[in-house]
Amino acid sequence: MHAFIGQMYPLCRSITGAGFRETLSLVSRHIPLEIHEVPTGTPVFDWTVPKEWNIRDAYVKDSAGRRVIDFRRSNLHVVSYSIPIRTTLPLAELKDHIFTLPEHPDWIPYRTSYYQETWGFCMSHNEMLKLKEDHYEVCIDSSLEPGHLTYGEYYLPGEKEDEVLISCHACHPSLCNDNLSSVAMITFLAKHMSEHPRRYSYRFLFIPGTIGSITWLCLNEEKVSKIKHGLVAACVGDPGKSTYKKSRQGNAEIDRVVAHVLQHSGSEYEIMEFSPYGYDERQYGSPGFNLPIGCLMRTPYKCYPEYHTSADDLDFVRPECLADSLRKYLAVLNILEKNRTYLNIYPKCEPQLGKRGLYRLIGGDRETGFDQMSLLWVLNLSDGSHSMLDIADNAGYKFSIISKAAEVLEEKQLLQLTENEITG
Amino acid sequence: MHAFIGQMYPLCRSITGAGFRETLSLVSRHIPLEIHEVPTGTPVFDWTVPKEWNIRDAYVKDSAGRRVIDFRRSNLHVVSYSIPIRTTLPLAELKDHIFTLPEHPDWIPYRTSYYQETWGFCMSHNEMLKLKEDHYEVCIDSSLEPGHLTYGEYYLPGEKEDEVLISCHACHPSLCNDNLSSVAMITFLAKHMSEHPRRYSYRFLFIPGTIGSITWLCLNEEKVSKIKHGLVAACVGDPGKSTYKKSRQGNAEIDRVVAHVLQHSGSEYEIMEFSPYGYDERQYGSPGFNLPIGCLMRTPYKCYPEYHTSADDLDFVRPECLADSLRKYLAVLNILEKNRTYLNIYPKCEPQLGKRGLYRLIGGDRETGFDQMSLLWVLNLSDGSHSMLDIADNAGYKFSIISKAAEVLEEKQLLQLTENEITG
Amino acid sequence: MHAFIGQMYPLCRSITGAGFRETLSLVSRHIPLEIHEVPTGTPVFDWTVPKEWNIRDAYVKDSAGRRVIDFRRSNLHVVSYSIPIRTTLPLAELKDHIFTLPEHPDWIPYRTSYYQETWGFCMSHNEMLKLKEDHYEVCIDSSLEPGHLTYGEYYLPGEKEDEVLISCHACHPSLCNDNLSSVAMITFLAKHMSEHPRRYSYRFLFIPGTIGSITWLCLNEEKVSKIKHGLVAACVGDPGKSTYKKSRQGNAEIDRVVAHVLQHSGSEYEIMEFSPYGYDERQYGSPGFNLPIGCLMRTPYKCYPEYHTSADDLDFVRPECLADSLRKYLAVLNILEKNRTYLNIYPKCEPQLGKRGLYRLIGGDRETGFDQMSLLWVLNLSDGSHSMLDIADNAGYKFSIISKAAEVLEEKQLLQLTENEITG
Repeated sequence: MHAFIGQMYPLCRSITGAGFRETLSLVSRHIPLEIHEVPTGTPVFDWTVPKEWNIRDAYVKDSAGRRVIDFRRSNLHVVSYSIPIRTTLPLAELKDHIFTLPEHPDWIPYRTSYYQETWGFCMSHNEMLKLKEDHYEVCIDSSLEPGHLTYGEYYLPGEKEDEVLISCHACHPSLCNDNLSSVAMITFLAKHMSEHPRRYSYRFLFIPGTIGSITWLCLNEEKVSKIKHGLVAACVGDPGKSTYKKSRQGNAEIDRVVAHVLQHSGSEYEIMEFSPYGYDERQYGSPGFNLPIGCLMRTPYKCYPEYHTSADDLDFVRPECLADSLRKYLAVLNILEKNRTYLNIYPKCEPQLGKRGLYRLIGGDRETGFDQMSLLWVLNLSDGSHSMLDIADNAGYKFSIISKAAEVLEEKQLLQLTENEITG
Repeated sequence: MHAFIGQMYPLCRSITGAGFRETLSLVSRHIPLEIHEVPTGTPVFDWTVPKEWNIRDAYVKDSAGRRVIDFRRSNLHVVSYSIPIRTTLPLAELKDHIFTLPEHPDWIPYRTSYYQETWGFCMSHNEMLKLKEDHYEVCIDSSLEPGHLTYGEYYLPGEKEDEVLISCHACHPSLCNDNLSSVAMITFLAKHMSEHPRRYSYRFLFIPGTIGSITWLCLNEEKVSKIKHGLVAACVGDPGKSTYKKSRQGNAEIDRVVAHVLQHSGSEYEIMEFSPYGYDERQYGSPGFNLPIGCLMRTPYKCYPEYHTSADDLDFVRPECLADSLRKYLAVLNILEKNRTYLNIYPKCEPQLGKRGLYRLIGGDRETGFDQMSLLWVLNLSDGSHSMLDIADNAGYKFSIISKAAEVLEEKQLLQLTENEITG
Repeated sequence: MHAFIGQMYPLCRSITGAGFRETLSLVSRHIPLEIHEVPTGTPVFDWTVPKEWNIRDAYVKDSAGRRVIDFRRSNLHVVSYSIPIRTTLPLAELKDHIFTLPEHPDWIPYRTSYYQETWGFCMSHNEMLKLKEDHYEVCIDSSLEPGHLTYGEYYLPGEKEDEVLISCHACHPSLCNDNLSSVAMITFLAKHMSEHPRRYSYRFLFIPGTIGSITWLCLNEEKVSKIKHGLVAACVGDPGKSTYKKSRQGNAEIDRVVAHVLQHSGSEYEIMEFSPYGYDERQYGSPGFNLPIGCLMRTPYKCYPEYHTSADDLDFVRPECLADSLRKYLAVLNILEKNRTYLNIYPKCEPQLGKRGLYRLIGGDRETGFDQMSLLWVLNLSDGSHSMLDIADNAGYKFSIISKAAEVLEEKQLLQLTENEITG
C-alpha cells in the first residue's frame, strides 16, 4: 500500500481535472473501476458541478529570472483552482496572494479556492522571508473551463442487494495521510473482498470531497435505501491511535460493530460522537439521508500538525499503520457479514450438550472451558432478539468466539436462522 | 431591589391580614397588580381558607413594667397567628410559651401556628436567660376573625395563550432572603417582561405559602392546562450558589432550560431532584397537577443557619446576588421565548453556504469559525425533532449562539419553522 | 439450621437414589413435603430421567488387605454415579481412575459422571502420593438401574394463585455450603412462611440440580405462568458477603427487591448480571421460560477454594451466616408481600395532614421528622404508577418506613389500593 501511495503522490489532484483521472487510472490497475464523468453545470441538490480545473505549470520569478516559487517542485505551491494569471507585481502586492504557516516555517500549507475565482501561492514561511523587494513575474498556466467532474465506483454484488458503502475522497494533491492512505487502503480492501463470497453487496467510491458525495447522492438517490452500513475512510496511515466517529444515528449496527472491533483490538482507540463537520459523512449524514455511515480513521482532521501541509508526506504514513487500518476494516466487514440472528430450537431448559459431544466428560471440574461458556451464551440469548454481536457484547466475548460457537450449534441442529434472516 | 426589600422589611406579614395587603400595595407601585380577596371559610380542595389574623401590639412586661419582649422592636417576637391574650404569669408558665435558639443564642427564631389556636413568643436565647423569677404581664393585641385571604396576581398576555407561571410566597414577616428577595426580584422581572414583546403569556403570583397556592389552584383549575412552564422563586438574595430543584416531571423543558443556563453561567451551581417538601412547587407538583414547575433559588431552605431567624435580615441579602438571580431568571425566560423547532429546507446534503455569503472565502483554513460550526449544527439537526435547545445541548454550545445561527439561516431561507410551531 | 445440616451431612446423596430420599425424609420432619417419584426413562424436554444410582460400599485395598481408600470414611471418595466394579489393578492403571487436587493436597475433590457410564475414586493428593507399587483390589458396590428420580415439593397456598418459587438443589453428598446450607435454610423459611398469612402462594422445591429443574419444569409446564417471582438458594452459609445474581430479565421486581434489601442491609454485598452458568436459574432462565428468578447466595460457585471439596464441611458453614441469609430471604419475601400500588385519594394539592393529627403542631420547626417526609413521598408518588418499592427507591428510604407511612395514610382514608391491585 505504501508503494502504491508513492505512485499516486506526485500527481496534482483537485476536485476535477487530469490529476484526479490519472489517480483513478492507477487504482484501475488493481480493481475494475467504473469511471463516471459528470458535466460542468449539472445541478446536484443545492450545488452545481463546477468547471474543470487543469494546470500545466506555475511559478514566481524574480527579476533575475530565478523561480522563487516553482510548481514543478511541489504542487502544493499553487492554491487549488487558481485561475490562470500572467503578470508582474512588486513584492507587496505579491504577498497578498501568498499563504504561509508561521508556526511551522519550513512547511508549505495546502489551500483551495473552489467556489471563488481567484489565485494564490503557498510557500514555506522561511522561503517567504527571503523574498527581497523586487518585481516578480507571476505565472499560473491553468485552465478553468467547462468539462467534467470525475469519480470512480466499484460495485461488488453479493448474495443480497443490501449494500455496504465504503467511500473516500481522492481530491487532494501531494498529501499522503489525507487522503492517499485511504485511496490505497480501499483499493486493497476492495480487491480482498472481491476474492471471497459475500452476503452483502459492496460499493467502493473514489470521489472528490464534498461535491463528489453530493453528486453521487443526487445521481443515485434511488439506490440510497439499499445502503445498510457504511464507512468513510480517511487518514488511515499515520501512527496515531484508531479513531471512530459515529454515524449520525449514533447506535447503528456499524457503530456497534466498529466499537466492538476497536474494543477487542488490544490497542488504544477513541470513539467520538457524530458532528456535522469532517469528511463526506457530513453529506451521508445530512438529515434528508441520515445514513448509518461513520468514519474510521486514525488521527482525526486538524488534530495533527502535519494536516494539510507539505509535511503530510510519504514519511508521515507508515506501512505498519496502513496494514493495521486494513486489518480493522476487514474485521469490521467480517462481523457485518457474520452478524446473524438465530433461534434456539430447544428454548425450554438447556439442550443436553453431552449427548451431542459438546460437554466435558467428568462433571465438577473446577475449570470451565471457554467454549463451553460461549455455547451456553449463544443458546441462552438466541431468542430471536439478539444478534451474534448482541450476544458477544452481552457476554463480554470477542465476536469470533461467539460466531464459532453458533456455527457448531447450527451444525448440531440446535440453532436455526430466524425467519427474518431467511426471507430478509 | 435591595432598597425595595428595605421598604417591605418592617411590615408584619402573615398568611392573611394587613401586613400582606400593605406589601402587595408596595409591589403595586411598580407593576399593575390585581388584588384578590378570598373569604374565610371558602373550601379549597382539602383545606379551608382560615380566619384573618391582624396584630397591633404585643409585649411581655416584668413587674417593674419594663417590656422584656416588645413586638415593636421585631415582629418575629410573636408566634404568627397567636390568638389575643392578656394575662399575668409566673416565669415558669411563661416559658412554656417562649421559643429560642440555644445554638444561635443571639438570634430570634421565626415560628407560626396557623392551624392550631394557641399563642407564643420568640426571643433570643441570651435574652431569655436574663429573665428573672417574677410575675410577667403578657399581652398580644391580635385578632383572629373571619376576613379574607389576600393574594396578588399580574397577568401579562403574550402572542399565545400558553403561560409561564412565576410564583413566590410573600407571607413571612421581617425575613429578607426568605422571601422578600423573591418578592422584589419577581416585581422587577415582571416589569422587565412587560416592556418587551412576548411569545408566551406570563402570570406572576404573590401569595401566602401553601394555602395561597392551594387557593389559587382551586379557584383557577380551568386555567392550569395553559401553564406550560413555571418557576417558584425563593431565597434569591443570599451569597450562596444558584440551586435548582427540578419539577416533579424531572425532564420538562423548564428543567432543561434552567440546567442549560446554570451550566453556561460560569459560576458554581447545583441541581437537585424534585422532592415533595420545600415551597409551593409541592402543590404545583402534586400528582393531580404535576405541572412543569421547578424552584430556582440560591441556598435552599434549611441549608443556611440564618434560615427562619432574625439573622435573615437586610445584611444577609446582597444587591449583587439579587442582580445575579434576576439575570438568570431573564436568561431562562429568554430561552423559553426563543426555543423553537425548525426544519432544514435543504435536508439532502449540505446547502451551499458559500453562495449565500455564509462560508469563508479560502478553504483549508486551519481554524474553523465558531459561527461556521453552529450553522452546520443547526442545519444538520433541524429535522423537526430537535429544538434550538436540543441542538445547543447536543453541540455543547451556548443557546444564544445556536439561536443566532438559526436566525441567520432563517433569513437566508434555509430554515423554516415546523408546522407545529406555526399552528401550535 | 446448623444442627440440621449436621444431620444431613453423612448421607451419600446424588441426583437419584436412597441418599436423596433420606434427605427429603429429614426435611419432612419440619415441613409437610410432598415427595414425587419420576420413573427412569421419562422424557423431559431434550433430556431423559436417568437410571437410579445407589451405593452400599466402596474401597481400594492394597495387597495387604488394608483399605487405602474407604467410602465409609467419606462419601466423596467415590465419583458419583460410578458403575459397579470389582477388579484388581496395578497402581498405574488404578491412577487413571483417581482424581486429586494437587493445589490443596489435603482435600478430597468432589466429582460426578452422571451421563457417561464409568467409575472413579477421589482422594487427597497427599494420600495418593503414599500409594506404593502394588496390586490393588478395587470394589464399588453400587447399582445403576431403572428406578426413579425423586424430588420434594411444598406448596403453601396464599390469598392469590400468583406464586413465588424458592428452589434449591439437594443432590450433593457431604458438602455443606453447596448445598445443605440452602436445604436447611429453605426448610426453616418455608416453616416460617406457613405460620403467617400470605398474599402470594409459595412453592418450595428440593430437587437434584439441572435434571431436577428440567424435570419439574417439564411436568409442571402449565403452572409456570403463575410464577411471578422466584429465587434459587445456594451457598448461603459461608462467611462471605451476600451476592445476588440477577434473573435473566435483569430488572424484574425480584431483582429490584433483592437489590433494595442488600442496599439497606448495612453490610457489603455484590450484584452480578445474569449469565447462563451456575445453578438451576440456568433452566428457569432459559429463553423458552425466561422466569423472573434470580439467585441469592453468599460466595458464588467456584469463587471459594473449598468449593466442591471435602473442605466444604460443617466448619465452613457458620450459624450466624445461615441466620443472616435467612433474615435476608425473609426481608425479600416481606417486601414482595407488601409491595402494593396505591392511589392518593386527594391528588390535587397536598391533603391537610394537620387536621388528621399527622402534622407537627408548631410550624417552622428547624427539623423535619422522618415520618413527616415519608408521608409526603407516599402521597406525592401514589399516582397509580409507583409501587411502595418505587417510592422507597425514589426517596432513598428503607421499604419498611414507606410501607409504614402508607399504612397510616390508608387508615386515615387518604390512600386506596389501585383497581389493578384489587381485581388483580
